[in-house]
Amino acid sequence: MSGTTGTSGKYLVTGGAGYVGSVVAQHLLEAGHEVVVLDNLSTGFREGVPAGASFIEGDIRDAAKWLDASFDAVLHFAAFSQVGESVVKPEKYWDNNVGGTMALLGAMREAGVRKLVFSSTAATYGEPQQVPIVESAPTQPTNPYGASKLAVDHMISGEAAAHGLGAVSLRYFNVAGAYGEQGERHDPESHLIPLVLQVAQGRREAISVFGDDYPTPDGTCVRDYIHVADLAEAHLLAVAAAKPGEHLICNLGNGNGFSVREVIETVREVTGHPIPEVVAPRRGGDPAVLVASAATAREQLGWNPSRADLAGIVADAWEFAQHIASSARES
Amino acid sequence: MSGTTGTSGKYLVTGGAGYVGSVVAQHLLEAGHEVVVLDNLSTGFREGVPAGASFIEGDIRDAAKWLDASFDAVLHFAAFSQVGESVVKPEKYWDNNVGGTMALLGAMREAGVRKLVFSSTAATYGEPQQVPIVESAPTQPTNPYGASKLAVDHMISGEAAAHGLGAVSLRYFNVAGAYGEQGERHDPESHLIPLVLQVAQGRREAISVFGDDYPTPDGTCVRDYIHVADLAEAHLLAVAAAKPGEHLICNLGNGNGFSVREVIETVREVTGHPIPEVVAPRRGGDPAVLVASAATAREQLGWNPSRADLAGIVADAWEFAQHIASSARES
Repeated sequence: MSGTTGTSGKYLVTGGAGYVGSVVAQHLLEAGHEVVVLDNLSTGFREGVPAGASFIEGDIRDAAKWLDASFDAVLHFAAFSQVGESVVKPEKYWDNNVGGTMALLGAMREAGVRKLVFSSTAATYGEPQQVPIVESAPTQPTNPYGASKLAVDHMISGEAAAHGLGAVSLRYFNVAGAYGEQGERHDPESHLIPLVLQVAQGRREAISVFGDDYPTPDGTCVRDYIHVADLAEAHLLAVAAAKPGEHLICNLGNGNGFSVREVIETVREVTGHPIPEVVAPRRGGDPAVLVASAATAREQLGWNPSRADLAGIVADAWEFAQHIASSARES
Repeated sequence: MSGTTGTSGKYLVTGGAGYVGSVVAQHLLEAGHEVVVLDNLSTGFREGVPAGASFIEGDIRDAAKWLDASFDAVLHFAAFSQVGESVVKPEKYWDNNVGGTMALLGAMREAGVRKLVFSSTAATYGEPQQVPIVESAPTQPTNPYGASKLAVDHMISGEAAAHGLGAVSLRYFNVAGAYGEQGERHDPESHLIPLVLQVAQGRREAISVFGDDYPTPDGTCVRDYIHVADLAEAHLLAVAAAKPGEHLICNLGNGNGFSVREVIETVREVTGHPIPEVVAPRRGGDPAVLVASAATAREQLGWNPSRADLAGIVADAWEFAQHIASSARES
């Protein structure tokens, strides 16, 4: 078995046609590893799979068909991830995110693949009692998306203790930015930065600001934005850090919060577009401030995010958004 | 649709051949309701199903075969519930307890059965930060059994919000005692009172006391024992209290703790047997004190447990244990 440095390894990346999965797959390839992407393309894009990766169009429930002992680890991104949809169709999230991971863990056990890096989320915490949020904070998810990811984290803990799996769950805060050909394109889009960029592109008239009376410096919600390339690096470190029988849980964020208004203002600066905004009522379940303590990732993984500058994150996302738009015009 | 008083209703009781399920089924019958028990007999006993209930030997995953709009509610007990086994075979608990409930909720949705009472557990809380434990306490289960039940509680919350299910989760503390022909017989047995009664019956030489140096009055662990008949009454009240679109979570305990030594001494008094004890090391994951606040059940369900006396609980369990032993000799 090999780590992520030195000898090259072979990795299964589930959901590798999606945003974060494709960026991690690209990083694995650049580090000299063999990458097999498994994605059913229910929300991913075939063209998101990086060149150089093998691609299997298939479901994680059928992972046993393709997993064998030649794989060094699985990096598991495949999941539905729309909070709003999860509230309306929770069964879809339990079935796919939880049921799918049950099947994947079973396939890994049978194949003897004993390392896992799992794409978890800050949504497992729910409304925080204290910020920055540490990993020992209470986990009280406020929507089925977060609850389904929490269930998987618990499932992985049990699998590690019982069957020697070495696992790391990475709880993402607000992932943003892009990495070359890989970037963010959800349908429907629900993340702030790509939505504001759609306004800059003229695809949307104005950006809605949901609540400007929060107890924050400018009244709008504060979130912890992390560059997807910094995030990807944490995954390679996590593969190397996974120890048999242990399940490590790490938050991934910069520990720096930016408000909705700061994000909008940064997009104005980066794009030169005025970005009209409309103040709308608060949405239920939006905490005022969500900021990570990433001390565990720094200490346990040796992670050192280097792209914490909001203007840089937005500039990379903007470049990707323009690239996608021009590809769409050409095709 | 009918409540539990006045007109009679029709109820599906999953796991109704098990300990708590069978006692609840018996209470429903005594209240004049029609009861259908669904149990795959993987841990239940056919003879545990009360006379007067219809019995289906089948799995909750196939519930759609039998559920239809004629049912007023489902009372869902079917689950694996051995903490120790869950640590060794977590996948069995995720598959059955979580996967099985996913299927059951789907079948209920299709059939239009929109009331559920779920058998949850104090194990969803894990090591308490404060006692008595209230329902808003952090949920940090320390084993896959507790984690699987917590996942189901979260699943039910989503189902209620999205699809109008009226649901009550009842988080049991230490259920004990018996009710007529229905009592506790797990294999292997892991609960304190039946284990001590096995010593009284000569089926076991001594009782192990796991740790006598806890910060409690006599150094042994303190638990909240609740009579299964009190518990059953809470289920009938919960059926009546379930409101469409709401998921109520209630602890069920007496709020009175008894130590391991108090339980053993009470068994000595009730049975007249000397009950040798052997002090063994603490077990991992055994908190010193687990006592419920049942204020929510009292206020929201109108529950008023009347059998909190430990000697009475033990006497009922002893009568049942002798009954089972004499049935075994006759057969």
